[in-house]
Amino acid sequence: MATQPNLDELCINTIRTLAMDGVQKAKSGHPGMPMGMAAAAYVLWTRILRHNPQNPKWMNRDRFILSAGHGSMLLYSLLHLTGYDLPLDELRRFRQWESKTPGHPEYPEVPGVEVTTGPLGQGFGNGVGMAIAARHLAARLNAPGFPVIDHRIYAIVSDGDLMEGVASEAASLAGHLRLGNLIYLYDDNGITIEGSTSLAFTEGVPQRFEAYGWHVQAVTGNDLEGVEAAIRRAQGVSDRPSLICTRTHIAYGSPNKQDTAGAHGAPLGEDEVRLTKRNLGWPENETFLIPPEALAVFREAVRRGERLESEWRQMLGGFASAHPERHQLYHTLADGGLEEGWEHCLPAFGEETKPVATREASGKCLSALFPHAPGLLGGSADLSPSNDTYVKGFGDFSAGNYAGRNFHFGVREHAMGAILNGMALHGGLVPYGGTFLVFSDYMRPSVRLAAMMKAHVIYVWTHDSIGLGEDGPTHQPVEHIAALRTIPGLVCIRPADASETSEAWRAALLWTSGPVALFLSRQKLPVIDRTSFASAGGVHRGAYVLAEAQGGRPDVILIASGSEVVVALQARELLQTRQVKTRVVSMPCWEFFKMQDPAYRESVITRSVRLRVSIEAGVSFGWERWVGEDGLIIGLDRFGASAPYETLMKEFGFTAENVAQKVLERLR
Amino acid sequence: MATQPNLDELCINTIRTLAMDGVQKAKSGHPGMPMGMAAAAYVLWTRILRHNPQNPKWMNRDRFILSAGHGSMLLYSLLHLTGYDLPLDELRRFRQWESKTPGHPEYPEVPGVEVTTGPLGQGFGNGVGMAIAARHLAARLNAPGFPVIDHRIYAIVSDGDLMEGVASEAASLAGHLRLGNLIYLYDDNGITIEGSTSLAFTEGVPQRFEAYGWHVQAVTGNDLEGVEAAIRRAQGVSDRPSLICTRTHIAYGSPNKQDTAGAHGAPLGEDEVRLTKRNLGWPENETFLIPPEALAVFREAVRRGERLESEWRQMLGGFASAHPERHQLYHTLADGGLEEGWEHCLPAFGEETKPVATREASGKCLSALFPHAPGLLGGSADLSPSNDTYVKGFGDFSAGNYAGRNFHFGVREHAMGAILNGMALHGGLVPYGGTFLVFSDYMRPSVRLAAMMKAHVIYVWTHDSIGLGEDGPTHQPVEHIAALRTIPGLVCIRPADASETSEAWRAALLWTSGPVALFLSRQKLPVIDRTSFASAGGVHRGAYVLAEAQGGRPDVILIASGSEVVVALQARELLQTRQVKTRVVSMPCWEFFKMQDPAYRESVITRSVRLRVSIEAGVSFGWERWVGEDGLIIGLDRFGASAPYETLMKEFGFTAENVAQKVLERLR
Repeated sequence: MATQPNLDELCINTIRTLAMDGVQKAKSGHPGMPMGMAAAAYVLWTRILRHNPQNPKWMNRDRFILSAGHGSMLLYSLLHLTGYDLPLDELRRFRQWESKTPGHPEYPEVPGVEVTTGPLGQGFGNGVGMAIAARHLAARLNAPGFPVIDHRIYAIVSDGDLMEGVASEAASLAGHLRLGNLIYLYDDNGITIEGSTSLAFTEGVPQRFEAYGWHVQAVTGNDLEGVEAAIRRAQGVSDRPSLICTRTHIAYGSPNKQDTAGAHGAPLGEDEVRLTKRNLGWPENETFLIPPEALAVFREAVRRGERLESEWRQMLGGFASAHPERHQLYHTLADGGLEEGWEHCLPAFGEETKPVATREASGKCLSALFPHAPGLLGGSADLSPSNDTYVKGFGDFSAGNYAGRNFHFGVREHAMGAILNGMALHGGLVPYGGTFLVFSDYMRPSVRLAAMMKAHVIYVWTHDSIGLGEDGPTHQPVEHIAALRTIPGLVCIRPADASETSEAWRAALLWTSGPVALFLSRQKLPVIDRTSFASAGGVHRGAYVLAEAQGGRPDVILIASGSEVVVALQARELLQTRQVKTRVVSMPCWEFFKMQDPAYRESVITRSVRLRVSIEAGVSFGWERWVGEDGLIIGLDRFGASAPYETLMKEFGFTAENVAQKVLERLR
Repeated sequence: MATQPNLDELCINTIRTLAMDGVQKAKSGHPGMPMGMAAAAYVLWTRILRHNPQNPKWMNRDRFILSAGHGSMLLYSLLHLTGYDLPLDELRRFRQWESKTPGHPEYPEVPGVEVTTGPLGQGFGNGVGMAIAARHLAARLNAPGFPVIDHRIYAIVSDGDLMEGVASEAASLAGHLRLGNLIYLYDDNGITIEGSTSLAFTEGVPQRFEAYGWHVQAVTGNDLEGVEAAIRRAQGVSDRPSLICTRTHIAYGSPNKQDTAGAHGAPLGEDEVRLTKRNLGWPENETFLIPPEALAVFREAVRRGERLESEWRQMLGGFASAHPERHQLYHTLADGGLEEGWEHCLPAFGEETKPVATREASGKCLSALFPHAPGLLGGSADLSPSNDTYVKGFGDFSAGNYAGRNFHFGVREHAMGAILNGMALHGGLVPYGGTFLVFSDYMRPSVRLAAMMKAHVIYVWTHDSIGLGEDGPTHQPVEHIAALRTIPGLVCIRPADASETSEAWRAALLWTSGPVALFLSRQKLPVIDRTSFASAGGVHRGAYVLAEAQGGRPDVILIASGSEVVVALQARELLQTRQVKTRVVSMPCWEFFKMQDPAYRESVITRSVRLRVSIEAGVSFGWERWVGEDGLIIGLDRFGASAPYETLMKEFGFTAENVAQKVLERLR
């Protein structure tokens, strides 16, 4: 779709001036990047991108990610101009309370925004996750003549993105997996916040990406035909991801601020905005001006998008007849990835007499779930034998087998986090990823974003305490359980035994409104006899009375999670023989418990019972919430140590004897 | 120092068998890596490394880092063999309670261990930090004929290290800075935990490192002369860091486990140990055998080390006469980096009438401190204009000016964290690093290790709440303050105004037994009138009564930190006019407060005052500790939003009016 040069220029300057005006009106924001990348983005959005502004959820749309999320006005301008449900008034309310145009792009608040970006490097990794999802779905669904999933993932990435380790990890994996459906434009403007990139970033970016196995090109951002040709060449390379190094000028057109760090993160200023408009041949006193002929060019996207989706739907109709099973699978995947009746497949551990590590129980759950939860795809950051995340018989996802459902992330926890987010947001998958709980720190920025975006991602974090033993303090999570509980919207479940693990997996799949973290033991744990004690179904309420006090109103309530629940049960035995009426509460999930009605909560954590004792092999931080001012916290407010786990549990006081003794001291 | 081939082999097999035996006895650990790298490590430790086993703290020693810390038996074997204070009995107690041979190398517990490693990628980054420290000290101290600091930093890094983003970030920076004093041996054994590296790691490592600006060579690990020649060539390249790709065989010599993932993280098994010994020509029933002639070779290090250090000390004597000022600086730096009387230079803000952001006050502190605290060196992860971390007049650290004291980390928070640790552990520096508080997540694994190692690192984390405004929830820390408080040994200080900021910096420099984090505001805050209210010196006690209740025993205690302290003061005004006797406690640092005696704590947080109210613009998690069961937490248990900060503070209830109203509702 070639247009006249003048009209192109008019369209590009529309983006530039909208960005300037939005930032200037907000008195806050980042004008430079949108002005520099306007031309390349214009080419991408008007000549390349296959999307339908009227249906931002069309399954086979191309995805566009603004990894350099600070340039949000670029994206908001494009969304408005191409006909998404983002009125111009919202652009005028850039960065204001409850506007649809927050400082950085936010998912799912803004229609057409595929993912929340801003923390650098994340969008880069999210795109890799989406490309993986697309390749996987294509491998399982497509049939000759029926390209159900054949879209691409585009992104604009910045110097900052490329400096972040998470992007390096994701890039290495994308090259390894030969993700030819990934095309990234690198906004190479030579400027960061502190000044020239020469201050800290002089590596050979093209050479680095070639080393990763990427297809690399270089173009000039304002050369429309050059940008278009480069993207089309990248499309032709189906076995390698593409990086198009796009030389640009930050704040292009600004007489005094172009190519300076001053244009990165602050408004240009009223005067400079006016000077820039004059320089670009724009009416200098107009703001938020959209020339009708420019709008017409952009709005072509609406008609085109309708056609693209309608053709696809027609194909999908044929697909339903020709490949009914695959078509059924498509719908199952698109609707959440679970077959009807999936819940019945979860293993029951009632018969087990031997102790089972909850990581091992989790592995059994995954094996049972895989055939009935076709959306499940996941793996580990090179710890699958330890995390029990590998499911036999379902293949390994690789460049030679995109249909494989076991994923090898490599020793790349952070990229794993970002990729899981991308997979989840793509749709069609329920992704999970495992590592040691202590390494949740490595992926924490992505976990936070999953929570913010309410992405349905499942974390399989094993080796969840000093109970991992000999590897020592570097590998023993002590503060992690508490630290993860602080993240709003992250559901954390620490099952006490195999039965609770099964319920935890059920909960993880049912809870689709955000990420779910499973904290699992390395060490073997007895399977609690549910004929004597309460059902593990209590997991879904977050905390429940596992064993009621014998002989009347409790003198003490022991509250424990995970591997310490059995310690609490054993302490109860000791205490009951000493006539101390002892209730044991299993509390695998604070977040679920907080959602319960006050009466239920009171029935479990009864405030009038003044001696409430928490037992958890981690920092005490936060437990006052449940034990109160007269309670007792049995925790570990220091780093662990290297020794066999039984020694550690004893030395650090996580034994029935110590718990009972502490309680008796208090009651004396 | 050439030895006979047979003797070399004997020495190398001593390392291999010690590693096998240690792991086998512990029934836990990683035998494969030490066996594969034994030959290369032997060359490094007997022919190259300039160190003094009798004085592991000799300032100009070469540093050796085992970044692949799981191979700890390699390091423990070398330390014992070369004469460090690590008896053979400790090797027999590998991974046992209170042994000197924990699962992963731990600093400062084990003599000769330079840094705690194990979480992959960290050691790689620590080495870069040490190389920076060495180059910096050399630039400020060395004079012709007096190479006070001219040592090198060596490390063994693994596939896992190279996959981690933190290593990529650090590698890019090391190349940019032309750190020729850095020589890394890459243990290229082709195996990770999940199997062959071909599962997830097929990038061109040499090409990638060349793109970063490194000097790259390839050798065979068991080719002693080849390894030695490569290291010597690397030494000759003074303007580029070196990577020596060392092809090795995991579990070399094991007939059934060599080159398999099974040899990575588990004992070989009694039988295989025996078979391996037989295969290596070793007495198969002996354990922890050290042939005397092998020991003699290793123990050469003692005599050589004594000579090296004594020559250096002699040189230092001459240096003292020839360059007395530099010699004085050397001692100031080696002794903590602070000149006598440095405290007096800290700015007082008593006279300020205009509001000052605490980040800005922090910038003023740094500028005042720099001339009197010559050990201070630091900067920001590309946010110095926002973090106020740049100190004019002290130059920029760069390949052309290693004496510069302002550091540009680039957008590399994680590497910054690891590099700061390396700088601190090198000695001679008090390093600091800044970013937005929200991005503390990106560097959290390194922060944890700083706390574990008690490394004196200072974090300047600004934009510490929703008070940063328009950038929105991706950039607004909400859970971070709580999450950082969970890390054992990390001191977190959130000053209320400029005066407390000055005291916070004083505390940060005085507290040398671990890392200190400063949480600083983006927004301007009134400078509290200390003639009416208590002195900011209360910062050192963690919490203090800023304003006592008027008219007798308090009805309510308002406890606040940072920007919310002024809100508390204003709420007190409102409440006192309503006859509510209100005490205001400023609580900048939980950790310091917990160290106070109970009587002081009770005088501040008086438990008999039942209505205690916390006000902090972050999650409520953990505040029950101070407000108790009848108290009130005014916090933010959700992500923030994009809008001007005054709007956010109002909408989310951080106003005097809301606080007063909430208190009145409770008292009604």
